[in-house]
Amino acid sequence: MIRTVEWSNGEVVMIDQTRLPQEYVQLRMTDYRNVAHAIRVMQVRGAPAIGVAAALGMALAAQAVDREAERGELDAALERAAQELMSTRPTAINLFWAVRRIWDLAREKPGWSTERCRHEIIETAAAMVDEDIAINRALGLNGADLVPENAAILTHCNAGALACAGYGTALGVVRAAVEQGKRIRVLADETRPRLQGAQLTCWELQEDGIPVTLIPDNAAGSLMRRGEIDLVVVGADRIAANGDVANKIGTYPVAVLAKENGIPFYVAAPLSTIDLSLPTGEEIPIEQRDSAEVTSVGVQSIGPAGIAALNPAFDVTPARYVQAIITEKGVAKPPYEENLRRLCESERS
Amino acid sequence: MIRTVEWSNGEVVMIDQTRLPQEYVQLRMTDYRNVAHAIRVMQVRGAPAIGVAAALGMALAAQAVDREAERGELDAALERAAQELMSTRPTAINLFWAVRRIWDLAREKPGWSTERCRHEIIETAAAMVDEDIAINRALGLNGADLVPENAAILTHCNAGALACAGYGTALGVVRAAVEQGKRIRVLADETRPRLQGAQLTCWELQEDGIPVTLIPDNAAGSLMRRGEIDLVVVGADRIAANGDVANKIGTYPVAVLAKENGIPFYVAAPLSTIDLSLPTGEEIPIEQRDSAEVTSVGVQSIGPAGIAALNPAFDVTPARYVQAIITEKGVAKPPYEENLRRLCESERS
Repeated sequence: MIRTVEWSNGEVVMIDQTRLPQEYVQLRMTDYRNVAHAIRVMQVRGAPAIGVAAALGMALAAQAVDREAERGELDAALERAAQELMSTRPTAINLFWAVRRIWDLAREKPGWSTERCRHEIIETAAAMVDEDIAINRALGLNGADLVPENAAILTHCNAGALACAGYGTALGVVRAAVEQGKRIRVLADETRPRLQGAQLTCWELQEDGIPVTLIPDNAAGSLMRRGEIDLVVVGADRIAANGDVANKIGTYPVAVLAKENGIPFYVAAPLSTIDLSLPTGEEIPIEQRDSAEVTSVGVQSIGPAGIAALNPAFDVTPARYVQAIITEKGVAKPPYEENLRRLCESERS
Repeated sequence: MIRTVEWSNGEVVMIDQTRLPQEYVQLRMTDYRNVAHAIRVMQVRGAPAIGVAAALGMALAAQAVDREAERGELDAALERAAQELMSTRPTAINLFWAVRRIWDLAREKPGWSTERCRHEIIETAAAMVDEDIAINRALGLNGADLVPENAAILTHCNAGALACAGYGTALGVVRAAVEQGKRIRVLADETRPRLQGAQLTCWELQEDGIPVTLIPDNAAGSLMRRGEIDLVVVGADRIAANGDVANKIGTYPVAVLAKENGIPFYVAAPLSTIDLSLPTGEEIPIEQRDSAEVTSVGVQSIGPAGIAALNPAFDVTPARYVQAIITEKGVAKPPYEENLRRLCESERS
């Protein structure tokens, strides 16, 4: 089983996703700044994986403080780490959720000793790895019911084991359907500019022996029109209270094409991806990345020298295109405002 | 001015489009089989350019027959060349139209001497270069009226000077609008898998000093939704009698997204692209190209070893998404069945 990011004997261990599928390399880190760097350059990416990695980064920051130090020293170290980790990428809410969850352990217990607080932080962060996988398994089971036998499933980007601690959200639904004995096949959008579909989704499904075919993003529409896709399932980086979904650039076109062709479009995401503080998707900050990701593919330049390029990393799919949002606590359908809030409240109770 | 393909002192001269934008290389050919090869491997591409190149290929085949030879020898040579040229690529109708136009000169005049027939073929084919440019200039003027001042224009693939003998169809509309003094800017879809937008459209607009910004195909939808695109204009490889349009893969998604966002979607193509023999786009043959074009970008492999991939080179956009079809004889609007037929008849009269 793929373990994307984990805690092992005081180190954060993660697969370097910038080197897949050509090379499988594990990175080992003992400094939270290396974790922040890994998030920024996308050695680890995918909303849930970023969240888990950031929580483990907080654990490294806590671990670096001496057990005997003053609490003030620990608190200062946590604040520095939290600020740096939260500045890495703006769109995925799981990052902020995970950092705050760890940071709050300290902020809510000013009376704990440095040693106690340090211990609780490391234990909690390390447990988030297994918790994330358990959430994905529950989410996958909920979603698998929506997958018919012999389905051809389109996915965009990578919302798989590599986007989480393991198992996956959108690909968790695929894995759960396969575990139920359903024969399915996946069509993977290559997902320019960073090619997570080609490089990550194809790799991890191939590893698991699940049939997968790579397609250019441009081919998804005509395959839908010709009846060759039965459903779409994607992940999410942030979901607003009204069900608008921020996800990898190119998701909105897939959703519009699915609706136009009468194909269900599902979003699979843990409740930690839902941001009830934002009424709509219009308020979700969209990261603009370096134009060099568009003007080149790896080392290869693809445009003329000096060409201007735009590189928005995410887009927002309005809720009206989303058939259902699959979470670990159940499947939300419209009206999302009401039904997402109910799922989130069931989580807290 | 860019001359994509031309006749020069008994040779076919063309820009090798597989080497742009890194290198500007002109190929010189005296054997029609080299022209067929160039079409197959996309050293020359774009429906009108393929048509002109194939006509010039026929001229090379005629030129290779001795002036004193029997007419039967010339006719046999033309048939061989026609068959080979027509077998190169299946979708663009201009290829078949151009080959037949030259071939028919011989087939309709069995009484001409070899020398006369050879001469007429070479003259007619060579004249098709300037004729194509004149058609594009007329088409561009017709389309420029549809372009508002300060427009941001999205285009897909390359329907520019490089897709024709020169000037361009979709980019002919852009050039004509610029020549009218309109301030416009172009957003160029990169157009995976072959990246004609990044490599060709960006290059030729940059050469002409027309503002152009490269975007991933995946970003077109969210730019439309945010009001950053005023109109779309693309070329066509074949247009059915009912106005359905076959064009580069990814055109159909752009058309659906334009309609969804209330943005006009125009197709710019010469009348030679219209195939009145096909009632709808469903009958247009769609070329399936090598999956290696999807699993790699140039020399760089992007998927895991052994991954399966689909590579349809074109898609069909149903006529209901097309606001207007811009031709050299005027702008056709729905109902297309009637209005395209009328334009084609005006051409013949």
